[in-house]
Amino acid sequence: MFIEIGDFLNLRLKQMGIQHLFGVPGDFNLSYLEQVEADPQLEFIGNCNELNAAYAADGYARINGFSALATTYGVGDLSAINGIAGAYAENVALVHISGIPPLHAVQKGTLLHHTLVDGNYDNIMNCMKEFTVAQTRLTPANAAFEIDRVLRQCFLDRRPVHIQLASDITHIKIEVSDRPLDLSYPTVEPELLQEAVSKLCDVISRAQSPALLVDQEASVFGVTSLLEDLSQKCSMAYANMSTAKNVMDEGAPLYLGTYAGGASQAHVLSRIEQSDCLIGVGVRFSDVGTAVFSHQIKPQHYIEIRPYSLNIFGQDFPGIEIGQLLLELNKKITPRKLSTPILQNQPKTVEVLAQQKLSQEILWRHIQGFFKDDDVIIGEVGTSNSALSGLKLPATAQYIAQPLWGSIGYTLPALLGSLLAAPDRRQILFIGDGSFQLTVQELSTIIRHELKPIIFLLNNGGYTIERLIMGENAVYNDIQNWKYTEIANVFNGNKNYNSHIVETAEHLQQVLASLDQNDGMCFIELKLPAMDAPSSLKKFASVIARFDYGDRGFSILKQRAKAVLCEKALSN
Amino acid sequence: MFIEIGDFLNLRLKQMGIQHLFGVPGDFNLSYLEQVEADPQLEFIGNCNELNAAYAADGYARINGFSALATTYGVGDLSAINGIAGAYAENVALVHISGIPPLHAVQKGTLLHHTLVDGNYDNIMNCMKEFTVAQTRLTPANAAFEIDRVLRQCFLDRRPVHIQLASDITHIKIEVSDRPLDLSYPTVEPELLQEAVSKLCDVISRAQSPALLVDQEASVFGVTSLLEDLSQKCSMAYANMSTAKNVMDEGAPLYLGTYAGGASQAHVLSRIEQSDCLIGVGVRFSDVGTAVFSHQIKPQHYIEIRPYSLNIFGQDFPGIEIGQLLLELNKKITPRKLSTPILQNQPKTVEVLAQQKLSQEILWRHIQGFFKDDDVIIGEVGTSNSALSGLKLPATAQYIAQPLWGSIGYTLPALLGSLLAAPDRRQILFIGDGSFQLTVQELSTIIRHELKPIIFLLNNGGYTIERLIMGENAVYNDIQNWKYTEIANVFNGNKNYNSHIVETAEHLQQVLASLDQNDGMCFIELKLPAMDAPSSLKKFASVIARFDYGDRGFSILKQRAKAVLCEKALSN
Repeated sequence: MFIEIGDFLNLRLKQMGIQHLFGVPGDFNLSYLEQVEADPQLEFIGNCNELNAAYAADGYARINGFSALATTYGVGDLSAINGIAGAYAENVALVHISGIPPLHAVQKGTLLHHTLVDGNYDNIMNCMKEFTVAQTRLTPANAAFEIDRVLRQCFLDRRPVHIQLASDITHIKIEVSDRPLDLSYPTVEPELLQEAVSKLCDVISRAQSPALLVDQEASVFGVTSLLEDLSQKCSMAYANMSTAKNVMDEGAPLYLGTYAGGASQAHVLSRIEQSDCLIGVGVRFSDVGTAVFSHQIKPQHYIEIRPYSLNIFGQDFPGIEIGQLLLELNKKITPRKLSTPILQNQPKTVEVLAQQKLSQEILWRHIQGFFKDDDVIIGEVGTSNSALSGLKLPATAQYIAQPLWGSIGYTLPALLGSLLAAPDRRQILFIGDGSFQLTVQELSTIIRHELKPIIFLLNNGGYTIERLIMGENAVYNDIQNWKYTEIANVFNGNKNYNSHIVETAEHLQQVLASLDQNDGMCFIELKLPAMDAPSSLKKFASVIARFDYGDRGFSILKQRAKAVLCEKALSN
Repeated sequence: MFIEIGDFLNLRLKQMGIQHLFGVPGDFNLSYLEQVEADPQLEFIGNCNELNAAYAADGYARINGFSALATTYGVGDLSAINGIAGAYAENVALVHISGIPPLHAVQKGTLLHHTLVDGNYDNIMNCMKEFTVAQTRLTPANAAFEIDRVLRQCFLDRRPVHIQLASDITHIKIEVSDRPLDLSYPTVEPELLQEAVSKLCDVISRAQSPALLVDQEASVFGVTSLLEDLSQKCSMAYANMSTAKNVMDEGAPLYLGTYAGGASQAHVLSRIEQSDCLIGVGVRFSDVGTAVFSHQIKPQHYIEIRPYSLNIFGQDFPGIEIGQLLLELNKKITPRKLSTPILQNQPKTVEVLAQQKLSQEILWRHIQGFFKDDDVIIGEVGTSNSALSGLKLPATAQYIAQPLWGSIGYTLPALLGSLLAAPDRRQILFIGDGSFQLTVQELSTIIRHELKPIIFLLNNGGYTIERLIMGENAVYNDIQNWKYTEIANVFNGNKNYNSHIVETAEHLQQVLASLDQNDGMCFIELKLPAMDAPSSLKKFASVIARFDYGDRGFSILKQRAKAVLCEKALSN
């Protein structure tokens, strides 16, 4: 059949389950946006800027599986690239469509605006190659197969791809096949699969204390229920990395807790590090996941399963795919009973006085009981993500954060995306004041589409996570204090919305109790001390400081900070 | 002498005349920011996000000559890169300092946050190479010469450079020479210079109608007064490209006007295109500067002078530097008198009725008379820059815009930068509502530092420049309408500031008359019709549309838009 190139791309996006396309219009993508607007099954969500659009697309894909982002050449692409890189780091399948100048101009090196005016049309593509798993510049000759190639790579790797669509070819018809996009994994060679499965069955059955360690890829590649089955069958205890919060049932008897290297709870640490058969699924031992490389995993007892690779105690099995592997493993594995019971720490109960000033400790103790089944919970890096990582969430709740890339400001636009992907779920954002300022305008888009999140703004007067690391009293960690609860009104949130400024434990309780009666968006500003933080973060911050600045640098800086304080004290 | 690496970098920045450093803190740049904060001659300006910081640094450099930007690795760098690319396209000398992870981690490929967690530490540098003229990753061994190499390239090219400063080496002392940074141009070989000057004198003296065409580089490389001398000496008429607004005296008798290809006024067009010796200084014939390549310049009569190159009627003279060339030319050239008088169009006077609704025409007619000597005037791309390009500005006023890179939202943060570079000058921004939303939070930083600009917010309900090109009634060109005049208050502008919402000609007159009595920041929202625009822009937009979408695409799109309108009309 013949179909216009832009419409073909949109057909494919819809086959991936995409119903919303985020972005900002610009002259090089307008002809494509005309095609989006004409499509009754696609909605263009205009963002306030392109970085926010990329974050929103990221948040959308975290619930929907795939997402799309449309920008205009040069200015739009480079504004969005930080969000695209974040999606790469965090395994988010985002399709980036850049409306580029007309093909004749690109091919001739014409001196256009939104370029360096030097005839170079490769620089944007060169940048995108660093942060996407496939790229293409469409032409009428290649579009029929290039669109499918690139989107299929996005499916297989669950990472961003980059498509350049010239403004003058969107409406040219090309001949394409009627078959839908192939969204299946290549079948693994049966003998190879059996060999790997046999080996796995063998080592697992011999092990005294097998255990599972699960990271984000398990969720991204949809194998968490296969892992739960495996755990059940073999009475195999499991832990998650902090970057995979709540992707497995954290209320199950075999759940150990979060493994975070030397910062893990004692029973988690011993069960993971002393396992004689530890199966890591998609695990990345990063600084943030291991309390700065304090993990001690024995390679000779470690099995690594990644989406397309397997390594058993040091031996590689190329050509494996995780889903087929786990499915077959569950069929073949001999069930067994584990004798050692799992000790789970019970949360301490501490009495909270009603008039007590709000603190991080009081806050999170109350928030714990506030969550419900099916909630979408979003935690900005810093105090929010750090505290939420330690809370027990309802099994069906989904947690969204960007702990590895860690770009502050990510969560507010991501919330817009997740709200559009799951408008019927209750969605709750926790974000600090410093982070909020980076991307504040996307609250306007949330309001524009009459979405109804609950937003907790933790106002602790600046970049608390940075203060913990360095510069407690430094001006560079200060920010302007805003009237946060008035912002929704300025963005024309005339519809029903509620706002509160909370300073005490009692008021927090009242506000939390009242939230469910509200129909509109709720915005709660929480006044917190500047240097207050979850204890895990406080501990982590000083380890980070020593790592970042070296022992010598750290000592010099601490001495100088002390000298400045002394001088101030003397002059008073 | 021995000096800490970060302090040495700061010493060099100060030698370039930099007193403010823009950016956002992050753990990898905190040890460097400690050094900035400790330096009494440097002030760190914390921005709300990194793209805004880059724009602010750009605006600062446009007045100050050079500027500095500090970000943290990965997230910060990529958030800022669009602003850095813009500085490259527009010849702005910006020093980008990225605080990167500790050198040992970079060298070992340690899996850290703010990376793709794959051990790759080259991807950010690869991107920066596309948009900077020099890059370096500092080490204690190379810092003494690498800092000087990179900063000197920034001086020579007046374009961005990228410096990676690892978090653990900022406080290591290195041995450096006492000599200040070399901020001089290499001396041109005297014989070569004489040869080029003789040739130029010869062709200019033979010409019947020599003329000068001046672009932005003339201003960036500080040769505008040499060009004015040359024009005077030889009675040589001159025009500017639209990308070089007000860089030469636009009130002088020899000033022709703005040359914009076929869209030029008739007398400018004929004097430039029919010159038998046209000297283009730093000219780039881009789409926006030539009304989409409608210029007709004869190569056989064209002399091109760029900062380091010269071409006379097709013949190249390598090894020339613009300043030395023009200085020597002015010494050697034989003065002559020009006979042809220059016809300048007088602005039409049209009566404005007081109660008349505000329109673009009324607005700019009033604004023309509002400007004063030494004003800094900033025009966002779109209707503002388009209209301001056509106004006569006071000779000592400086005009700032980003017409080539054309990244919307640029001007509000750029205003912050230009205000800090010239706090005693009156500074006036014109920005559309669509653009304002991209970077709104930087108004907070302007307020934080108690700066006092006059901001005109042109509220025409969305992306008017895009509507003119495509999608007049398309939803993708709509934006959320904000309560713009209340934003300063939300950002805690408790200090004295004034705001007005203007809908009529009479009210505009009153407000303009009142502005000088105000001491604080003034924010004026101008209500304008969605499809109203300066006539030059309207004309340009349809040319752009045909260029972008091709004749066929343009016809298809127009037909469909018409069909949609018909259907709507029938259903009503």
